[in-house]
Amino acid sequence: MSEAAARRPLRVATVGYAFMGRAHSQGWRGAPRFFDLPRDPVMQVLVGRSPERAAHAADTLGWAEVETDWRRVVERDDIDLIDICTPGDTHAAIATAALEAGKHVLVEKPMANTLAEAEQMAAAAAAAAERGVLSMVGFTYRRVPAVSLARQLVAEGRIGEVRQVRCQYLQDWLADESTPGSWRTDKEKAGSGALGDIGAHIVDLTHFITGQRVAGVSGRLDTLVTERPVAESFAGLSGKGGTEREPVTVDDVALFTGELAGGAPAIFEATRFAWGRKNAMRIEVNGSAGALAFDFEDMNVLNYYDAREPARTGGFRRIIVTEADHPYIEGWWPPGHGLGYEHGFVHQVVDLVRAIDAGEQPTPSFDDGLAVQRVLDAVERSAGRRSEFTEIPE
Amino acid sequence: MSEAAARRPLRVATVGYAFMGRAHSQGWRGAPRFFDLPRDPVMQVLVGRSPERAAHAADTLGWAEVETDWRRVVERDDIDLIDICTPGDTHAAIATAALEAGKHVLVEKPMANTLAEAEQMAAAAAAAAERGVLSMVGFTYRRVPAVSLARQLVAEGRIGEVRQVRCQYLQDWLADESTPGSWRTDKEKAGSGALGDIGAHIVDLTHFITGQRVAGVSGRLDTLVTERPVAESFAGLSGKGGTEREPVTVDDVALFTGELAGGAPAIFEATRFAWGRKNAMRIEVNGSAGALAFDFEDMNVLNYYDAREPARTGGFRRIIVTEADHPYIEGWWPPGHGLGYEHGFVHQVVDLVRAIDAGEQPTPSFDDGLAVQRVLDAVERSAGRRSEFTEIPE
Amino acid sequence: MSEAAARRPLRVATVGYAFMGRAHSQGWRGAPRFFDLPRDPVMQVLVGRSPERAAHAADTLGWAEVETDWRRVVERDDIDLIDICTPGDTHAAIATAALEAGKHVLVEKPMANTLAEAEQMAAAAAAAAERGVLSMVGFTYRRVPAVSLARQLVAEGRIGEVRQVRCQYLQDWLADESTPGSWRTDKEKAGSGALGDIGAHIVDLTHFITGQRVAGVSGRLDTLVTERPVAESFAGLSGKGGTEREPVTVDDVALFTGELAGGAPAIFEATRFAWGRKNAMRIEVNGSAGALAFDFEDMNVLNYYDAREPARTGGFRRIIVTEADHPYIEGWWPPGHGLGYEHGFVHQVVDLVRAIDAGEQPTPSFDDGLAVQRVLDAVERSAGRRSEFTEIPE
Amino acid sequence: MSEAAARRPLRVATVGYAFMGRAHSQGWRGAPRFFDLPRDPVMQVLVGRSPERAAHAADTLGWAEVETDWRRVVERDDIDLIDICTPGDTHAAIATAALEAGKHVLVEKPMANTLAEAEQMAAAAAAAAERGVLSMVGFTYRRVPAVSLARQLVAEGRIGEVRQVRCQYLQDWLADESTPGSWRTDKEKAGSGALGDIGAHIVDLTHFITGQRVAGVSGRLDTLVTERPVAESFAGLSGKGGTEREPVTVDDVALFTGELAGGAPAIFEATRFAWGRKNAMRIEVNGSAGALAFDFEDMNVLNYYDAREPARTGGFRRIIVTEADHPYIEGWWPPGHGLGYEHGFVHQVVDLVRAIDAGEQPTPSFDDGLAVQRVLDAVERSAGRRSEFTEIPE
Repeated sequence: MSEAAARRPLRVATVGYAFMGRAHSQGWRGAPRFFDLPRDPVMQVLVGRSPERAAHAADTLGWAEVETDWRRVVERDDIDLIDICTPGDTHAAIATAALEAGKHVLVEKPMANTLAEAEQMAAAAAAAAERGVLSMVGFTYRRVPAVSLARQLVAEGRIGEVRQVRCQYLQDWLADESTPGSWRTDKEKAGSGALGDIGAHIVDLTHFITGQRVAGVSGRLDTLVTERPVAESFAGLSGKGGTEREPVTVDDVALFTGELAGGAPAIFEATRFAWGRKNAMRIEVNGSAGALAFDFEDMNVLNYYDAREPARTGGFRRIIVTEADHPYIEGWWPPGHGLGYEHGFVHQVVDLVRAIDAGEQPTPSFDDGLAVQRVLDAVERSAGRRSEFTEIPE
Repeated sequence: MSEAAARRPLRVATVGYAFMGRAHSQGWRGAPRFFDLPRDPVMQVLVGRSPERAAHAADTLGWAEVETDWRRVVERDDIDLIDICTPGDTHAAIATAALEAGKHVLVEKPMANTLAEAEQMAAAAAAAAERGVLSMVGFTYRRVPAVSLARQLVAEGRIGEVRQVRCQYLQDWLADESTPGSWRTDKEKAGSGALGDIGAHIVDLTHFITGQRVAGVSGRLDTLVTERPVAESFAGLSGKGGTEREPVTVDDVALFTGELAGGAPAIFEATRFAWGRKNAMRIEVNGSAGALAFDFEDMNVLNYYDAREPARTGGFRRIIVTEADHPYIEGWWPPGHGLGYEHGFVHQVVDLVRAIDAGEQPTPSFDDGLAVQRVLDAVERSAGRRSEFTEIPE
Repeated sequence: MSEAAARRPLRVATVGYAFMGRAHSQGWRGAPRFFDLPRDPVMQVLVGRSPERAAHAADTLGWAEVETDWRRVVERDDIDLIDICTPGDTHAAIATAALEAGKHVLVEKPMANTLAEAEQMAAAAAAAAERGVLSMVGFTYRRVPAVSLARQLVAEGRIGEVRQVRCQYLQDWLADESTPGSWRTDKEKAGSGALGDIGAHIVDLTHFITGQRVAGVSGRLDTLVTERPVAESFAGLSGKGGTEREPVTVDDVALFTGELAGGAPAIFEATRFAWGRKNAMRIEVNGSAGALAFDFEDMNVLNYYDAREPARTGGFRRIIVTEADHPYIEGWWPPGHGLGYEHGFVHQVVDLVRAIDAGEQPTPSFDDGLAVQRVLDAVERSAGRRSEFTEIPE
Repeated sequence: MSEAAARRPLRVATVGYAFMGRAHSQGWRGAPRFFDLPRDPVMQVLVGRSPERAAHAADTLGWAEVETDWRRVVERDDIDLIDICTPGDTHAAIATAALEAGKHVLVEKPMANTLAEAEQMAAAAAAAAERGVLSMVGFTYRRVPAVSLARQLVAEGRIGEVRQVRCQYLQDWLADESTPGSWRTDKEKAGSGALGDIGAHIVDLTHFITGQRVAGVSGRLDTLVTERPVAESFAGLSGKGGTEREPVTVDDVALFTGELAGGAPAIFEATRFAWGRKNAMRIEVNGSAGALAFDFEDMNVLNYYDAREPARTGGFRRIIVTEADHPYIEGWWPPGHGLGYEHGFVHQVVDLVRAIDAGEQPTPSFDDGLAVQRVLDAVERSAGRRSEFTEIPE
């Protein structure tokens, strides 16, 4: 009997096979190849509304079967975990049903489109946890090794007390006015625009790296291009538009300032209009004894300034986060042989499977997801009230 | 007769000989050596309250005489221009008196400590201008070649319509809690902290590069270290403190979002607590057809993204701004032989002397300085009203 | 019947499961998940001398069976392709036997340890090709998208005529004197040190990107640390040494200058002693109309200077090579979601499977591998003759 | 009496007022304004063959008088120091005459066009030194603060024992074939091309930073564009050519490998054909305990890797060399307010005046200049003998 067979299987069904479905599939496929897992993920069912397209995707991505209705999968006895990769407006329904049916849940971010949904999901997760049913939100950027290292260094006191945070998430895929609209520019489907799509990431990173939550914000939301061509075809995030036009009902740019629970001021920008910045998710944390800076455009690097070093020989250190003792690197390659975007999805599976096996709450939990949602909601409310500072309840 | 003698002199008196006085002196000394000037600056008088220290400074910096009271200099017939390098609380009095006495005026930024003073100065400047007496504010960063080039490219339409601005001015010289207080941490003397000292620069840069003024802001001001040792000695911006302590009455960090006159959202941060960032004055402007990015820590470079270039070969271009046809470079060295901080002060003198000779308003004018002051004032008012969005009158 | 089943299988046996075996396995596993392949790779057999360790590796990496002797696999009828991931001293024997047995062959670089072996392998490959049996050398760095784009841009004339090449391959994993010896520091096993291990890559990249071969060299080889601890255990490239010591019989640093077939001068450095440089494989090509620069430490970026652009707005463009029309990107993620080290192994499988299906010679061929070997051999001969310039026969 | 008057004057005559004459003038003018000098430089005479152009230059640059024949200046009693800024073919004659006449001498690099001249000059300098007459070569890049800091850190053992050196000096001002010829492309005037002009700098930097001399080299010299238009006018290094053409008799590219006195291998490239690299003078030194890297295109930064730091938090530190305790910075600005190209010329004057006042040999001495010349000569001889390794006598 092979070793894999000896491990208890973890039978997975994933709902959705677009961008996120593909990335999650790579996570499920890759994790057992590079890491020692206590349970063996089985890629059982891929769920999609179109049977033909779902079958094609399942074949390509490595899933054993397809279903067209997520409700049926939730009812199946032979599924242990539901992985939700659909747009945000469906998250609450699927996650709640799955948790109630005793399935572990992994849900892509943003956890939900509204605060009410997020609260309902967090309550469902808390109830499920009492029955040993676990849940996690897919903020995979936490699992970029350089980001995990940042959190470790903060926790170790390497930058002292956190004093300030600055974050940017800069993309440019909507900067071209001829890029067509999509569910991502439709408030009904997406909840919000840059704010929920990418702003959510930098809020979560702030929570993760500093260990503190955002406690209040003052925000503004701007829609720079208010109408776009209706899409005739799609390719990745982009596509081809026709002559018809549709309104953009979400924000293109979200700007907010705020403070952490410990009082440290923080500043955030999320935009899809920053020409030339393709996926520049950046965070810099200033402490009383140093600083850390990360930019996803240089994702294998963490910059660290140690203020205890004399100024004469001090400077931001460009740590190439590919050493054997860096987070997650034991599964990969020698120093300098960097990782890419989808490796975070592999690490997510590793951590999730280990937590499930240990019966421990994986992170980020639905509570963590709710915390992000509360910040996004506060930004929206502040933006609706002339940027007035808006506290965020615990 | 030498050529210099043939040019009409421009007799200058400078008030103050600390950091800014030294930098301005270098401007006056250097400009005629590298550029063809229509008038010949004569470094006539250095003004300082202590006769010994002023005499020593005058000797070192190249001034012919010293005076201890700026009022006497304002009254002298043999002075054409008063250059004001003292702390902000003295600017209004000196500038107004000088303009009334028919002296051209160059005043270091921030133009004034309060909006009322700035308005009074702008009125004085307007009245003086009718009599041919000219005035200018010392926002020298406008004259970094890469910054001037940025303005040219925006004006030429190289990035299309301005859509977004993001600015940071990051320093770390107050991050060490043992750094003593100084006039810069005293609201009476300095007016404000990071906001007026370095925030003023990024507001002016935004005005200069985009050609649009900030029309409204939502801001917050934080003081991270509320007490500092009283200084026993100084060296540059830093110094040695004793056991006594004094309160910090200014902001350490200023964060604000806002919008330009044309509606483009903008985001600003000024801090002296960003460990490892020594003088990172950064501005990035996103337009409908491209983007520009500048960081003073790489001051001879302007990054330019041309969105008209196909994405396959597009990317931020690292323009090394040392070519003969770049702004101000004709006076200096071959390509790649970069300039430093104080060159902006030389360029300031070049532009000021040429404007005076031509009888034209130099820029930035006191009106430009007032515009910055109005933004700073609005940030302070917004910060006092829970970050409420605050319009800035034209 | 599923689509995969409809495709003809390509049954693969891989010899070796250390660093390269793991990377190749990921190539075989991943290629059909991200790319449309005309044949379906079947991961049939993993070959390793220790049955237990091979079985464990096969289980982890996803191979169906194990064998302990590569000779048996070569004789099997149900294997279409032999993938050789063992140290260089075994390449010639395995590759030649496999080709003679009608198996397609993929062999890791360096193709062989000696020029004689490489010549024999190239002859075997030529003979096999006449029977439709194909072969390829694993210079996977060619398949980093930014490197492939560099070749395209040169071929399109975007930098004009090639005038100069400068290459560096800088690592630091032997810089620590306490790092134990291994087969990589043993001339018998490895053939040479930095020269064959990493110097080979930059020679191949030069051939690939410029489309010209190195025609002559002047070289020197230095061994900086002549003795190392005997290894007691290994972890990646590094390990723990005991108190016994063994000689280092290969070069630590290889330096050579030379010229391309078209006469362009070129300069090369390969070292494992460059502290802080983890895997800095760099190539810069200067042409008559522009330049290209690549550094593996920033592997998703190609820097391009277009000399036809006026100097005023010219500068190295940082092309983030993640656009849909960049090489290989159609299989992956949206712009800015970069790739990592092992993606090149996926691309290698894609290109190899497509070539086999089309019955076309894949590249780099054994002839390409031989060309690199001739350069390495010439460097060694030159180094043995006081760096005298040594021509390389076509 | 002013303090300046109290200091003994050092009366200077500078020969030449082109690029280097302008830079040296700035050195003489600026040094006493920013640094405390024991003697007061007096800018007495500017020497140029054309009286009109010399007079104009003297007026602009701040020299009191002009002479048209350097011989007359050498004979004057009221001159203490001759500063030689003419092309290399005149250096030996002027320097030797000046030294014999008891004048201190500063000579721009390269010290001479031939080894014989350099030897003669070094002998003259040695003889003069016995009479208290001092001499110095103008390798000003030694006085870039980041370069001086590099030397300090090596001397302090911060990178351990020097193991390897890699240098590049990349420019692109001859990459355009239509750039006209000049004295710099004429072997008679310039001695050599890239080798002597910019290769000399990286050899001297190697000597300076490592404290070891290059002991042997293997080199090649290439002329990539063998004919250029005859210049009709000049602007900086560039100019406008007509229809007539002239041969290029110097190297465009110099490549050489070699070893230091202590046995460390080293590699060097000097080129004027590296499109997009404007003045990229780069040196990286690898030691047994760390590494240092410098690039003049980021001249206020020194990158330092400390191998004693655990790999987990290790990385190249970007030291911004503008702290008060960094070399030469005490004369300038607060941290982050960087210096430019010509500041090295100010520092050169500071060090020279202090050495003269102290009666101590300034560095780099003519012996140091001769050492560089010997390396250049050995490269040329090696290049003429199929790159054969050529020892350099002490």
